[in-house]
This record gives sequence, structure tokens and C-alpha cells, in this order.
Amino acid sequence: MQNPSIVLYGAGSAKVEDKPIPEILQAHDVLVQIAFVGVCGSDVHFWNEGGIGNHVDRESGIVMGHEASGIVTSIGTAVTDIQVGDRVAIEPGLPCRHCKPCKAGTYHLCKNIEFAASPGPPATPGTLCKYYKTAEDFVYKIPENISLEEAVLVEPTSVAVHSVKLGDVRPGETVVVMGSGTIGLLCAAVAKEFGAHRVILVDILDTKLEFARNYLECETFRPSTDADAETNATSLLSTFGLAEVDTVIEASGAASSIETGINILRKGGKYVQTGIGRRKVEFPIALVGEKELVVKGCFRYSSGDYELAVSLLSRGSIDVKSLISSTSPFEDATVAWEKTKKGEGIKNLIRGVL
Amino acid sequence: MQNPSIVLYGAGSAKVEDKPIPEILQAHDVLVQIAFVGVCGSDVHFWNEGGIGNHVDRESGIVMGHEASGIVTSIGTAVTDIQVGDRVAIEPGLPCRHCKPCKAGTYHLCKNIEFAASPGPPATPGTLCKYYKTAEDFVYKIPENISLEEAVLVEPTSVAVHSVKLGDVRPGETVVVMGSGTIGLLCAAVAKEFGAHRVILVDILDTKLEFARNYLECETFRPSTDADAETNATSLLSTFGLAEVDTVIEASGAASSIETGINILRKGGKYVQTGIGRRKVEFPIALVGEKELVVKGCFRYSSGDYELAVSLLSRGSIDVKSLISSTSPFEDATVAWEKTKKGEGIKNLIRGVL
Amino acid sequence: MQNPSIVLYGAGSAKVEDKPIPEILQAHDVLVQIAFVGVCGSDVHFWNEGGIGNHVDRESGIVMGHEASGIVTSIGTAVTDIQVGDRVAIEPGLPCRHCKPCKAGTYHLCKNIEFAASPGPPATPGTLCKYYKTAEDFVYKIPENISLEEAVLVEPTSVAVHSVKLGDVRPGETVVVMGSGTIGLLCAAVAKEFGAHRVILVDILDTKLEFARNYLECETFRPSTDADAETNATSLLSTFGLAEVDTVIEASGAASSIETGINILRKGGKYVQTGIGRRKVEFPIALVGEKELVVKGCFRYSSGDYELAVSLLSRGSIDVKSLISSTSPFEDATVAWEKTKKGEGIKNLIRGVL
Amino acid sequence: MQNPSIVLYGAGSAKVEDKPIPEILQAHDVLVQIAFVGVCGSDVHFWNEGGIGNHVDRESGIVMGHEASGIVTSIGTAVTDIQVGDRVAIEPGLPCRHCKPCKAGTYHLCKNIEFAASPGPPATPGTLCKYYKTAEDFVYKIPENISLEEAVLVEPTSVAVHSVKLGDVRPGETVVVMGSGTIGLLCAAVAKEFGAHRVILVDILDTKLEFARNYLECETFRPSTDADAETNATSLLSTFGLAEVDTVIEASGAASSIETGINILRKGGKYVQTGIGRRKVEFPIALVGEKELVVKGCFRYSSGDYELAVSLLSRGSIDVKSLISSTSPFEDATVAWEKTKKGEGIKNLIRGVL
Repeated sequence: MQNPSIVLYGAGSAKVEDKPIPEILQAHDVLVQIAFVGVCGSDVHFWNEGGIGNHVDRESGIVMGHEASGIVTSIGTAVTDIQVGDRVAIEPGLPCRHCKPCKAGTYHLCKNIEFAASPGPPATPGTLCKYYKTAEDFVYKIPENISLEEAVLVEPTSVAVHSVKLGDVRPGETVVVMGSGTIGLLCAAVAKEFGAHRVILVDILDTKLEFARNYLECETFRPSTDADAETNATSLLSTFGLAEVDTVIEASGAASSIETGINILRKGGKYVQTGIGRRKVEFPIALVGEKELVVKGCFRYSSGDYELAVSLLSRGSIDVKSLISSTSPFEDATVAWEKTKKGEGIKNLIRGVL
Repeated sequence: MQNPSIVLYGAGSAKVEDKPIPEILQAHDVLVQIAFVGVCGSDVHFWNEGGIGNHVDRESGIVMGHEASGIVTSIGTAVTDIQVGDRVAIEPGLPCRHCKPCKAGTYHLCKNIEFAASPGPPATPGTLCKYYKTAEDFVYKIPENISLEEAVLVEPTSVAVHSVKLGDVRPGETVVVMGSGTIGLLCAAVAKEFGAHRVILVDILDTKLEFARNYLECETFRPSTDADAETNATSLLSTFGLAEVDTVIEASGAASSIETGINILRKGGKYVQTGIGRRKVEFPIALVGEKELVVKGCFRYSSGDYELAVSLLSRGSIDVKSLISSTSPFEDATVAWEKTKKGEGIKNLIRGVL
Repeated sequence: MQNPSIVLYGAGSAKVEDKPIPEILQAHDVLVQIAFVGVCGSDVHFWNEGGIGNHVDRESGIVMGHEASGIVTSIGTAVTDIQVGDRVAIEPGLPCRHCKPCKAGTYHLCKNIEFAASPGPPATPGTLCKYYKTAEDFVYKIPENISLEEAVLVEPTSVAVHSVKLGDVRPGETVVVMGSGTIGLLCAAVAKEFGAHRVILVDILDTKLEFARNYLECETFRPSTDADAETNATSLLSTFGLAEVDTVIEASGAASSIETGINILRKGGKYVQTGIGRRKVEFPIALVGEKELVVKGCFRYSSGDYELAVSLLSRGSIDVKSLISSTSPFEDATVAWEKTKKGEGIKNLIRGVL
Repeated sequence: MQNPSIVLYGAGSAKVEDKPIPEILQAHDVLVQIAFVGVCGSDVHFWNEGGIGNHVDRESGIVMGHEASGIVTSIGTAVTDIQVGDRVAIEPGLPCRHCKPCKAGTYHLCKNIEFAASPGPPATPGTLCKYYKTAEDFVYKIPENISLEEAVLVEPTSVAVHSVKLGDVRPGETVVVMGSGTIGLLCAAVAKEFGAHRVILVDILDTKLEFARNYLECETFRPSTDADAETNATSLLSTFGLAEVDTVIEASGAASSIETGINILRKGGKYVQTGIGRRKVEFPIALVGEKELVVKGCFRYSSGDYELAVSLLSRGSIDVKSLISSTSPFEDATVAWEKTKKGEGIKNLIRGVL
């Protein structure tokens, strides 16, 4: 096969399939041979449901994968900063570069962004293939001390960087992160790098909280699943002797967690919705008004996020190695999806085609 | 009577009562003889329910009123910028000046602020009296071309200034204001002063929209009360040939209006919750994430808001005279409350004690 | 001639010359037949000195012109928002779209921007020609109520928009603009559109100040050329009964004006250096510290500036017609430069090739 | 003596003198028995010249000292957060709390601030005394792991916090600090706490740079005193393989250093003037424009700075113990000034009256 690719044709239906090797057409194009691809919650959602919102076309399918690392095999005529052989982390979206959001420094909000593994229309293929084409400024060279496995984790680290930036986390703050999965853990780690003096991770599973405490110097809290949000909020604050919290990064998407997050914030506090759950939730809007909170949506990553994530990993400030739980062969991609579906491990990887 | 005051003792129970004239104790104190007091929705709520959240003590009651103008009758030893005889608009809250929010430029978030007509505990008397004591920097001299009636409207204008500032309305923007009461109208007027190139006022009452179009150069929209938020959003946008909206100021508090507001915003758009309604609403949190919106609570007014409101009225940029619907004598305060309760007029005033 | 162009070969040496018509090569390219080109101070500098910093190559020369309007004659395959026949204002710079500043919303700081009439190397041709090629998102459709002559003025209006944005001019502010040329006048006009309640224009020529007062509702001040900056600052403030000023836009570049500007600012005040003069000046750095001022450089225009300038002209908020002093035929470009050199008129235009 | 105090009567003229013990007059007052007072450059300037700008009155003199720690001995009736016996760091300025800057979160810009050891008029006594009166919210409790000697260093740490905040230093940045005295060293340390990934300290003395490298994980550079600013800038950048720098904190005040700082910045870079030197300098204003730099003055400290400084010291993030070079007895205050004048040590302390 020229360019073996994992194609999803609908819920529970995927196969390895050959695709043409993408051609370098634009002067700034680069071709990357994929080394590793990570599995994230949205992959599982696709595997379960055949899509999120938009669903994959059952005829044409979609090449899966959007967290990836690899080695550059070919470059366009105008490429100067990247060379063949460079080991890179891939930012999996190509914005149009011409629209208002693109020119305003918010290319992640581009309506025509070609994001990896989007069912479309138009569909955009993902990174679960041998050769993936993108632009030179959406691959990031990684230094020797970062392995290609770890480089996959630049993607979720960038999500965390984007979240913490939106939360405008300032040195000295107390930050609570709701949800202790990959994104929650990395949000907590990044918040510390932004100078937070106290970081509390919240989850309903003791095992996750135990992992969190080993992974990171932080405090943890398990809310009661029987109690309402106000009670859990009071309980959280009194557990840590806090009157209130500066910033909440919500990384679980759970309705109860959203409400608890709003309740623990100080007047003028900041809240970032990073987790994805139900489309609508019962929301304490009066509290948002009375405390004059700032509530921000958080969507992927944008200008400068990948650069900072790479820098944080390069200098060893953030450990992503500990988050890698398994590595499946390319042809066993669905095995990796199943693992993640069952909650096995933190970050499961799929090896690229050798 | 020395200091006749309108005291509320619970829902539907109010009377004129004598109170001692407040003494100038602090060097920065000023005493103001009240000229006019405005009635706002929260007064009606108190008149209906005996309070909002906290209720008035049925024994001691509370002096009502927080929108007011008057003439300075006495000043403390350190007062320099205000003189006896000055005609002033009153900002009805005294913050502690020592806490973190006070020192950070957000004194409206002070936990110990003494806001007029707060049932407490501790209770803080309001402005519906003959003599009201406050601090020199919470009264604002008004020029001759502003009447004492109009000066009452500095308060709701400051609410609008605060909202539009929170919405970070920038020159050239398209702004939608949900709700066309006093606050909605003033938010629209202030948005124009902040440079909005297009302002659309939304209400379910045609009479209010007609008033709005006469009051202000703006466009208006009446959503269908039968349709859901998504439909009303689509309808609003197509009516005005808009793809999307930069900023929404929600000034109605209605759940349907909140949801419509979120739906019409552009990616990266801004939303301000100024209206007060139910404590919790069904809220499209997924849209907040996908469009990476900024949702801000809005609470009263703070640093610089009164100054700007006075300046806008002084130069004639904002007409508040047209918003004044009636003036009741002091002893008929409850008549003015009843009028507002029935939706009669825009802003009903109560005359001070002569 | 196919594409007659005005080529400068050095100080005082220019001629009309034929150049090939640029080809539409990129999918987003557009070709514009130039209607009018404006003359600005930098053109005069080139005409006088052969360049600013970099000088034109005496062999190859450079096509002059960067303020321009025209009609679209041809479009690339991916162009959707622009059609052949559209009347447009041209933003005269094409950034690389791939570097950090480009992706961060500051494409005007792109090191590889191809700005019209830059001597290079590499040299980039200007707009003083019959056909000018650029990208679809760097031309801006103008409505029927803006003439093609006026459309030229979108460029200096964008400079003013960029300056006033950098000055973070807020509603209610008192703004002083130093220098009353085209840019100074437009900065004053734009500051009013950003909500400044008081705008004072400063110039050493009474004729310019008289023009300013007729052009715009503003106040004016003529500093003494004999007095030092501190004295002129005191005099300016006392003339207008001001204690201090919120924002200064320096649009003259004169050393004395820079120093006066710093002196009149309030603590925490804002200063924007828009004017260009000597490379180094005697600067009151201690005042910058003691008053904790914010001093910003200002370079051209960037994301959103052209859009806002077009909108301001379209709705008639800013009058640019009054600023147009003369229109010279294409072949008399040097006559227009000479006029501007002698200080004749405000904005002199050169007509495109019919 | 009741309240022995070190009074300066002019250049080189100081003596220990008795003063009355300040009375607790205001409800928020606190009285502190001074433990240690630090000597800073401005003290030496007063000792040399009799003042900075304003000079001390030769008749009444001024009590010196503004960096101080102590133990609370008495509190006003409204004081709740501070108790007698509390060990505190003192923020040496009392703002009026009523003016616009005070209410806007910039109390350090208050025109009526009573800053310790200001010659006035009106004169405000300093902290070099036995008993010093201030307000409860301008003393900060220190935990047991901070000694009273170290607590003196909260003041310069707050200067550094304020500088780095003004520089808007963001995680991942490269920051250059010009000048390696107490303030420069602390700016470098604080920049790291704000997430700077690379910090370079600049000084002309090798001994200071050696101290810096031992004190802090940082890089250092010694500019040539023979070379011009452009040459030193190029040399600095090439030494560290940098194309440019994100933020410069100027903490020396030297004209050459200011110019070098401007030269090394990237387009859109940020510059903070923390050091104090000549009132006017030759300044590369054209570069500020071409690179669209942001140049900020820096004045003392303000809202939140002391809190963050105390937190940084408490958690051991910043070591101030290493900066303490000597401790002189109270009556030998002039000895400590002389030491600092001669450049002996980093931070010299004066012990309070036992």
C-alpha cells in the first residue's frame, strides 16, 4: 500500500485502506510520515456514534486521527524553517488565512479551517495514515529530548495552554480544575507553569485523583455524587480552607461539575468551559451576574499555543511521558479506541506505519 | 418631621416615617437633600415580595430608594470638590475602600459595600427620605443643563455604561440588546456612544419597540413567543441581513432571550448578562464552547461609570428626559411603585420632600 | 503601453514607463485598475531623498504609490467575496500569512510583508500604475456613496484608526492630537468616533488650525516656537482649563511636540507615536516613569483597520472629501509630489490611467 | 526616648531624635514597632543630595526609611484582619482612597498619597523610627518561615512584581533585565515566576553578574562600555543565539542601557522603565514606531503587588535571604547609607529600636 489509512465509515465500522500519497502542491506544503497518533475522547465518540454533530459519510468515510507526530519526508519550494528529516509535532488544522478571524489572530475560529478527521462537508482527512500533508507553519520541530511518542501529547498540552490562557491565570492564583483526565491533568500542570500558587484537581474517581497527586504537586477533591452543586462547592472550599477560588477550568463537561465550578468562584472570578458534555445544561446564570463572573468557551488551540506547549515539554516543565499508557500497532487502531472507551489508561497511542 | 422617609416593612406594607437627620461624622461625608427618586424593577420586587433574596426585617423595615438626585446641604471637614448648594446625582453605594476588590478598581464587588435600601443584615437605608448621607466621591455635580429630574437617570445610565464596557463594544460593531425597558434603551444608546455602527433592540411588545425607534436611531425586532430560540435567532439575523452579531447585551433576564442571544453571536462574540430573571436557566453551554464566546455577568456600576454617564447627559449625547413618564409626590411613593408594577410608563419618579 | 507606471530612480528622478500587466497566479489574487493614488509625506521624502532608510535601486527603480483606489478587472479561482467591476480601496501590503506575527493578528509586523513602493531588497512595486495585483482580502469594496477619489483616503483613515486603537481611546476622554496634517486631522476625527468627549488639535500654523476648526468640531492650540516643552504644556492645559489629558496622539514627529505631549498627560496616561521625524530625540524618560505612562509606537495599520475606516466613511461619520485639495493627471505625478512638498493643500491626488 | 527616629535635615546631615508615638486615630489604623529597615538607592540619594526633586526642609527635616518590617503593637476599632503581635511587612504609602486613580485600582498614582519619607510639602515621616502608624490594609502578615529581616525585602520584591506585571511577561518569553542590583535581580526572579523561559541579566560589573548566576538560574551579559547601543544590542543577541527579545525590564536607569534595551526588542515587544537615572535621555523614538513597541513607565507598586510578593517569599519561590548583606544598629543608620553609597553589598539593613 502507498498510504495505508484508517478509515471510519460509521459507528463501529472502520478499516485499513490505501489512499494516494498527498502531493506537495503549495509552496509552503510539507509531507510528514506519521510516527504516532493519540486517541482522544472525540475519537471514541466517532467510533461510538459515527461523528459529533456532523456524521461521517457512509460511502466515502473519513480518515481518523488528529493528535500526531512524525518525520518530514518532503517540503514545498518556499519552505525554509523545516527540513526533510525533521521530527515534528503536528497541529491538525489548516485555516484559510484570508478571513477576518484568521487575520485577527484567532485562526482556530476560521469557518473554513480544514481540521483533521472532520466529516465535513467538505470532509478533511485525519492523521491516521502513513503520509499526511500540511503546511510548514503547522508542524513544530521537537528537540532530541522529546520522543515522538511524547510529541503526540503536544496536542492535548496545547488544549491546556489555550484553556489556561483563556482563564487568564495569573501568578499567585488559586485554580480549580474540574475533571482529571488527560486534559484536566495538563490544565493543572499548565496552570502551575502560569504561576498558580495553588491548584486543586477535582474528579469523582479516587483512582484518578491518586494518579493526579503522583503526577503533579497538587491537591485533589472528590465531590459527592449524591450532593447538589452548592453543597459540593461549600465542601470543597471548607476542605481547603478557602473562601473562594480565582479561576475554574472545567475539563469534564459534566453538568454538576459546571454548576459546582460557578459556585466556588470569587466575585470577578474566571471560568473556562473546556470539557464537552451535553449541549444544554441547567446553569446558575444569576450567580454569574451577582458575582460578575467571566465565563469563556474554549475551542481547540490557536496562535502561539503549540509553540508554548513544545517549549514546556522541551525544558521538562511538564511531564507527558507518564500520561502514555499503551501503544497499539497501526492496524489495531480500533483496539486503542476500545481501550480508551473502557477508560483503560490515560493516553493510548497508535503506532504509525513503519 | 425632621427626616421623613418611606419605610418598607414587608410586601405591600410601607409608610412615611420620621428618621433622625444623619450626622456628618467622617471628614469626607456629605449630606444631600433629596430632590427626586426613581422607581426601578427591584423596587417593585421589594414592594411585591418584601425583598430580593434577603427580605426586609418586619420589625425595623428599610428606607427604600436608590436612584436619586439632590442638593448638598452640609459637608465634612475634608470635602474639597463638593460645596453646599451643589446639585448632584447620587451613586447609591459606599464600599469599604480597604478590601482587595476596592483597592483593585472593582469596588462594586466589595463584600461590605453599604448599598442604599439593602435589607441586610446589616440593613442600609435608601434615598427615599429628606436627607441622605454619603461620601463626597459618591455624589456627582451636574451642570445647569441637566435638571434634577434627569439627574435621577444617571443611575440607570451608569448601569448601561457598565454593561457596554463589559461587552467591550468597539467602534464599528453590530450590537443586539435584548429587552427594551429603561436599561435596554439606555444600553442601546450607550452602545452607539461607544461607536457601535448598528444597534438592534429586541422586545416582545410592539409598543416598546415603537417607543425605541422614536427614542433612538436603531433597528428593532420582535421575536415570536411561539418559536424556539434557534428559530428566533435565525429569523433575527435574516431580518437584518446579518450573518452574525458582535455583542449581545441581555437586558431582559428572560430565559428564551438568553438563549436567542447566545445563538446569534459570531465566533469569539461577547455576551453580557445585565437583566435579572430566574436564578437558573437552560443554557446552551456547547455553543459557548464551540464559538468560544465570552459571557460576562454584570453587577451595578463601578469606577468611572457615573462620571461617564454624567458626561454623556451633559453634552446631550443621551436623552433621558424622554424616559421620564410621571412624577409622584413623596407621600405617594407607593402609587409610583404600583404604576411601575403595572408597566405604566418607562421611568416613574417620586418627588423629594420640599 | 500595457501597464504605464511611474518609476522613481532616485531623488528627483522619475518617469512614466511601461511594465508588464501582473498575472493572476494565486487563487486569491485580484487585479485592480487603479483609479486614484494619493500623495503622502513619505512619497515626498522618496522624491527628495530617493528613499527612507532603504533607497531605491538606481538601475531598476521602484514603481511609486501606496494610497490607492480602483476597479477590479480580474480575479483568481478562489476569490469569492470580490467580483470583477467592484470599486475598491486597496490596503497596500501583502503579509506572508505564515509567520508568528501574521498568525498572531499583527500582520503589519510581518518581516516579509510586501508593502507597495518598498525599495527593498526585494523591491515591491507600488500602486502608481494602470494595473496593480494584490489579494482579495486586501481590497475593500466601497459603497456607491463613496467616490473613488474619497476611497483613496481610506488609507490615511486606517492609519488614524490604528493610532486611536493603540491609544485605547475610551468614551469620555480628553485627547490631544499633536500635528494637524492629514493624519492629525483624521486621528482627531477618529478619536471622536471612539467616543472622546474633548479633542484638541495642536499645530504651529494658524492656517492649519483654522482648517481644523472648520473641518471638525474640535478645539485648537498653537504652541509657542520660542517656549520650551514644559511651558507649552502648561500653557496648553491652562488655555483649556484642563488639569491633564488622557491620551496624546503625536502626529507631527517634531521633537518639541513629543516632549510637550508627554508633559500634558495624566498619571497613567497614554501616548502614541504616529508622526515620523528624527530617529532619536531628547526624551523625558523620568516623566514616563513618574507618571507611569504607556508610550506606544504606531506602524501603518493591521487587522480590522481598513474595515472600520471603510465603515466610518460609508456612514458619513468622517468627511474625507474636504481633505482632497487637487487631482493631477497620471503623467503629472511629480507635479503632485511637488505640490505636497511645498505644503500646498491637504491631500493631493493623482488620477489613474484612463 | 518615646519614639526614636532617624531624621534627615539635608545632605549629609542626620540625627537620632525623639518624636511622639503616633496615635491610633482612624478605625483602620495600626501601629507597628519597626523591626528592620532596608536601605535603597533613593535613601543614598537623599543622604547625598538632601532629596530627589523635592528636598527636605532644613528646619523640620524628615524621618527617613520606607522598606520596613515590624510587629503590630496596637490596632484601631475597625481592624479585623490584623492582630496585636502580628509580624508584618509594611507597604509604605497611604493613598487617599477617594480620588479617581484610587477608585480605579491604581492607588499608587494617587496625587495625595502619603508615602513614607517624602519631604513634601506636606512631609510624610518614614519608617526609620520605633513606632510607625499606617492602615491595616497596608501591612501584610508574614508566615513563620519568613524572618523579619527577609520581610523587609517584600518591598523591592513588590517593585519587581509591579515591573514584571507592567511588562506583561507571559509564559515562554525571553526576558532581558538591564541592571543587576537588588531590583534587577528580583525582576529576573519574578520574571521566571511569571513563566519566562529564558532570562538574561545585563550589567557592566562582572562581580554583579557572577552573583546573579549564583543567585538565580539565568544567563548574563556584560555590554562593552566603549561600544554604542546598536553594537551592544547586536552583540547581546548573537551571544545567546537570539533573533530578538520579547520583553526588556530596564532596572539601571543608564541612558546607554535604555537604548540597548530598545534595540534588542522584537516587533511588538515590551519595555518597562523601572530604573531611575537622568530626567531626559537621547531616545530612539523611530525604532519605537517602526517596531511598534510598548514602552511603559513603572512607579512603585500597587494593587495586589505586596500580596503576590509575600506569597512568592512564603512558598520559597524567591530567595531574598541571599540578598541581605549587612545589618547595622539603629543609631548607625548613616553607616548603612554609606555602605550602600560605596556599593558594598546588595541590601543593607538597619535594625529597629529594641
